Amino acid sequence: MKIAGYEQQPVDARLAREARWDVEEFHAAYCQLLDLGDIEQWADFFTTDCLYIITARENAEADLPVGLVYAEGRDMIRDRAFAVRHTQMFAPRYLQHFVSNVLILAVAGNEIRAQSNYQLLQTLVEGPTTLLQAGRYYDTFWRENGRLLIEERRCIYDTTLIANDLVLPV
Amino acid sequence: MKIAGYEQQPVDARLAREARWDVEEFHAAYCQLLDLGDIEQWADFFTTDCLYIITARENAEADLPVGLVYAEGRDMIRDRAFAVRHTQMFAPRYLQHFVSNVLILAVAGNEIRAQSNYQLLQTLVEGPTTLLQAGRYYDTFWRENGRLLIEERRCIYDTTLIANDLVLPV
Amino acid sequence: MKIAGYEQQPVDARLAREARWDVEEFHAAYCQLLDLGDIEQWADFFTTDCLYIITARENAEADLPVGLVYAEGRDMIRDRAFAVRHTQMFAPRYLQHFVSNVLILAVAGNEIRAQSNYQLLQTLVEGPTTLLQAGRYYDTFWRENGRLLIEERRCIYDTTLIANDLVLPV
Repeated sequence: MKIAGYEQQPVDARLAREARWDVEEFHAAYCQLLDLGDIEQWADFFTTDCLYIITARENAEADLPVGLVYAEGRDMIRDRAFAVRHTQMFAPRYLQHFVSNVLILAVAGNEIRAQSNYQLLQTLVEGPTTLLQAGRYYDTFWRENGRLLIEERRCIYDTTLIANDLVLPV
Repeated sequence: MKIAGYEQQPVDARLAREARWDVEEFHAAYCQLLDLGDIEQWADFFTTDCLYIITARENAEADLPVGLVYAEGRDMIRDRAFAVRHTQMFAPRYLQHFVSNVLILAVAGNEIRAQSNYQLLQTLVEGPTTLLQAGRYYDTFWRENGRLLIEERRCIYDTTLIANDLVLPV
Repeated sequence: MKIAGYEQQPVDARLAREARWDVEEFHAAYCQLLDLGDIEQWADFFTTDCLYIITARENAEADLPVGLVYAEGRDMIRDRAFAVRHTQMFAPRYLQHFVSNVLILAVAGNEIRAQSNYQLLQTLVEGPTTLLQAGRYYDTFWRENGRLLIEERRCIYDTTLIANDLVLPV
């Protein structure tokens, strides 16, 4: 699967390494927020004019724009967070993101393109812990005041049998 | 879930990064020991007056002190290692820890507070590999002679359906 | 389990850390290639006279040479890639490798010995995502023109119930 804009570019090894550290630290902070349920601050990780998409690998490979989630701009991220918090009805559950295999694809000025693997584990109350979704982040980060923000995040999941009725942030 | 003492403090970015590398290397060595079954050396990763707790997230959220495991001091860790090795009866199994998403919460002098995600996989002989426990380490490390030791480790697991009859180190 | 040649040696902390970063970046690039299905380039990660083995932990512990896969030299890796691509019959599936807990065991000149944990997830079309194999890489890397290559890779898996009819690269 090749996602347009996410090809491996030649990157200076030192720059790539520095970028990887930044991206790893971004993931740890971002995932902690979602896992602890502080969804109100979720939008703070995005640029104003961000693009956020969750879609199945088979859709991405067919270059279909249709996805599970499509949000353009930080305001839509905020709306989504509000919806998850206040209007969706679902059983309480614990979430845990595991991110690994961060690969820097391009570094240009304040912009970093990276690919990372994620697992999203879910635990229902009195239930087992199961793998809800496994996939890849294709990210474009923008560095602002020394801090990374998501300019674009495409979450492309392999897992085809996911519960479409409940769409949690990834 | 907020664990008292494990709030995010302002940390100098460079110090946080150095601490993260140290913590990642600690995890790799610690988990290797447990996964290879060298439990006799387990206590060497702790300070003399350490605190080690394994507890469910629902207990931690309710601020209940009750846990699956509670050990105060390196001697209790040694006792526990001895018990796991010599007195518990259980079927042979292989274990594997996967640690990711290391987040540095505070650095003060020789002390580091960190949060990390863990998965503990178990393989029974002639059986499948299953996820035994998924959770978070809330760690306070103490640097001694350039090496990290656990001053406090709270293993807080999401998985509520774990086998209580067999308690392995995490 | 102790694998001969993969004991922990004393390593200068700084050298070990530099080696860890290199190994982590190797894993990310190697796994991406396999996960995206570009198996034709798989052999480029190996030295000419490499050794590549996939074997069960119980075999490795009994010091049995028998394994699921045994390839000596880059040409055998190429043959294997060709076989996977062209002659094996199997249902389409998505793969994802998650690597963590990289531990540097030895550094000597251009050679690095390391141990890492891996999970190989598989998603069948219209099926759930499952854990196909969990294990450890025991790697000897050779640095050539600033780039790591696999001189020896022993993939030792805990999972005993794996589908022997289909052997994918790990």
